[in-house]
Amino acid sequence: MTELLLQTQDARGVVTLVLNDAARFNALGSDMLQALQEALDKIAMDDSVRAVVLAANGKAFCAGHNLKDMAAHPDLSYYQELFTQCSRMMLSIARLPVPVIARVHGMATAAGCQLVAQCDLAVASSEASFATSGINYGLFCATPSVPLVRNVPFKQAMEMLLTGDFIDAHTAQAQGLVNRVVTPQTLDASIEQLVSSIVQKPATAVRMGKALLYRQREMGLEAAYLLAGESMACNMMDADAQEGAQAFAQKRQPQWRG
Amino acid sequence: MTELLLQTQDARGVVTLVLNDAARFNALGSDMLQALQEALDKIAMDDSVRAVVLAANGKAFCAGHNLKDMAAHPDLSYYQELFTQCSRMMLSIARLPVPVIARVHGMATAAGCQLVAQCDLAVASSEASFATSGINYGLFCATPSVPLVRNVPFKQAMEMLLTGDFIDAHTAQAQGLVNRVVTPQTLDASIEQLVSSIVQKPATAVRMGKALLYRQREMGLEAAYLLAGESMACNMMDADAQEGAQAFAQKRQPQWRG
Amino acid sequence: MTELLLQTQDARGVVTLVLNDAARFNALGSDMLQALQEALDKIAMDDSVRAVVLAANGKAFCAGHNLKDMAAHPDLSYYQELFTQCSRMMLSIARLPVPVIARVHGMATAAGCQLVAQCDLAVASSEASFATSGINYGLFCATPSVPLVRNVPFKQAMEMLLTGDFIDAHTAQAQGLVNRVVTPQTLDASIEQLVSSIVQKPATAVRMGKALLYRQREMGLEAAYLLAGESMACNMMDADAQEGAQAFAQKRQPQWRG
Repeated sequence: MTELLLQTQDARGVVTLVLNDAARFNALGSDMLQALQEALDKIAMDDSVRAVVLAANGKAFCAGHNLKDMAAHPDLSYYQELFTQCSRMMLSIARLPVPVIARVHGMATAAGCQLVAQCDLAVASSEASFATSGINYGLFCATPSVPLVRNVPFKQAMEMLLTGDFIDAHTAQAQGLVNRVVTPQTLDASIEQLVSSIVQKPATAVRMGKALLYRQREMGLEAAYLLAGESMACNMMDADAQEGAQAFAQKRQPQWRG
Repeated sequence: MTELLLQTQDARGVVTLVLNDAARFNALGSDMLQALQEALDKIAMDDSVRAVVLAANGKAFCAGHNLKDMAAHPDLSYYQELFTQCSRMMLSIARLPVPVIARVHGMATAAGCQLVAQCDLAVASSEASFATSGINYGLFCATPSVPLVRNVPFKQAMEMLLTGDFIDAHTAQAQGLVNRVVTPQTLDASIEQLVSSIVQKPATAVRMGKALLYRQREMGLEAAYLLAGESMACNMMDADAQEGAQAFAQKRQPQWRG
Repeated sequence: MTELLLQTQDARGVVTLVLNDAARFNALGSDMLQALQEALDKIAMDDSVRAVVLAANGKAFCAGHNLKDMAAHPDLSYYQELFTQCSRMMLSIARLPVPVIARVHGMATAAGCQLVAQCDLAVASSEASFATSGINYGLFCATPSVPLVRNVPFKQAMEMLLTGDFIDAHTAQAQGLVNRVVTPQTLDASIEQLVSSIVQKPATAVRMGKALLYRQREMGLEAAYLLAGESMACNMMDADAQEGAQAFAQKRQPQWRG
């Protein structure tokens, strides 16, 4: 039996997760969601992991929920469980201690578009395209709208959600849904550049920083400053931050523990 | 006596509201606000309505509050009632069960700019322009700043509000205030394209979706996912969503009830 | 002894604060933070001030915290006090009754980038560049992330914070970090244009407006409208707003008190 989700880890601690269900356009069925959840739960416990790349095999990046499965289960509790399972996985990306980078080579639709929006960073091939297309089948992309409206200006998010229309990669970048758009040939090099930049930073600073950013953005300005100041003072007590400050003062390259 | 607000409804359930006070640049005086409120209240109760287009006659789209009336009533309770009435109307747009699309053919200033910002979607003619110009008369556009800062990046909103300067339609689009900019000749075609896309979707999904988007964007990430998951599960139990999923599974076009 | 912070005030009430520690790239050490705090506290009490320009001498705009000082004090309470002091100063910018405009002629890094993000408006020379570079020394720019994520789309903020990479002035403008990018030769003229626009507005409207914008943006839509409506009604009772409305009604230029 073919694995739904391929997983590799390199010497630097970079985990690559590859959606591997090309025949179903990497649909986020219950089985794929479970595979992703297990992988993320494992990564969350593993201090050797420094970054995660989320990629996909086949023509599409991810087609979202499996409408065929959903058609076969016309049952409220089935749907509630499915969306709970999916939202739990999406929240696990936000809460993962390390950055998650989407490598988007093709179409990302519905919960597939959500997956891109929920990742911390995203690089798209110029051939990628994005849609919250559930509305075309009578299902408003409600859970995808959660990270979408936190990435993209309000009216643009509303338009995508109400029309179900595709936007191309450059539009996605202009609107904030992805960080970079590159040629298909340079997609891996662009991902590697981001990953390499992140793994060159001390692990503690990256982990504290990601968690802080998600927490403080939901707060008022004063509370956000309070939390950020406390986080930053703690970060400074880390041996690597001490080494970084010393290296700066002595005009030399820092030597990280990690 | 000429009607301040023209109202038509087509066979698809698309209501077009036309501000019809060209002589006063469609100022949002108490009478115009009342006409809008009555129209919106009626639409909110009418299940046959699928979308609303908000347009205007004359040279300007809307010049905002009627400063002449305001000069004639130097009275705190008069102003409190006026802004309460105006904010109630603006909130009614956000709470209207169906999408509201602004058709902006000319200048939209002060509460007229707010009207554009508060609509769910907006298409602008290349001849349109936008300003929160109250500050030029000593009145900071406080209520317009509410939807403005929820559409446009913070510093850009601050600049518009403090300077009162106009931005052109392309700048408005780049900053998120409108979805599209088209030539004056293609403005109606562009509006029709959006409207037509929306009325082709099942009514329940559109109505649930709009309400959900406004509610979840004000929540923290976890609460937003909880609400969105529940909304989406309910949406799936709608007959049209079931038909959509079946049609997808059977590779045929869905046949909506609506 | 050279002053760390130069301060001038013109006849219109425009205060220019100039970071004057070129040798240390205008680092925000405890002494510079104290000088800024004292200047801001004085301005906050002074009704004659109409706007503040924050500029800098030397090659860089501001290099952020003084890492050399931080290296010399490996002590949690030292860091807590430093970040508390810094956040207090940054909050004082947001709470200052008058607009603060950053004049960014060169590099703005870490808390220097935060300073730009925290200002109400910012004009950058095309030679300016921006980075939240603490991560390069093992210190995630936690407090800078507070205003950054309130200016710039989420994924772009995340990328700057995790990579520490510089963005140029045009990218900063496209992402919302600065209002305008001009040539180094026209930087002062562009600042003067903004300042001149602001001082031509009545002081009360500007002061009420800035405070309102910061408060309402943290609220839900309905609460924001309530507060904004009340603020606007009060603003209308100001003599200058009355004069503005009268001038509008009488088709003449308003004559402000201030």
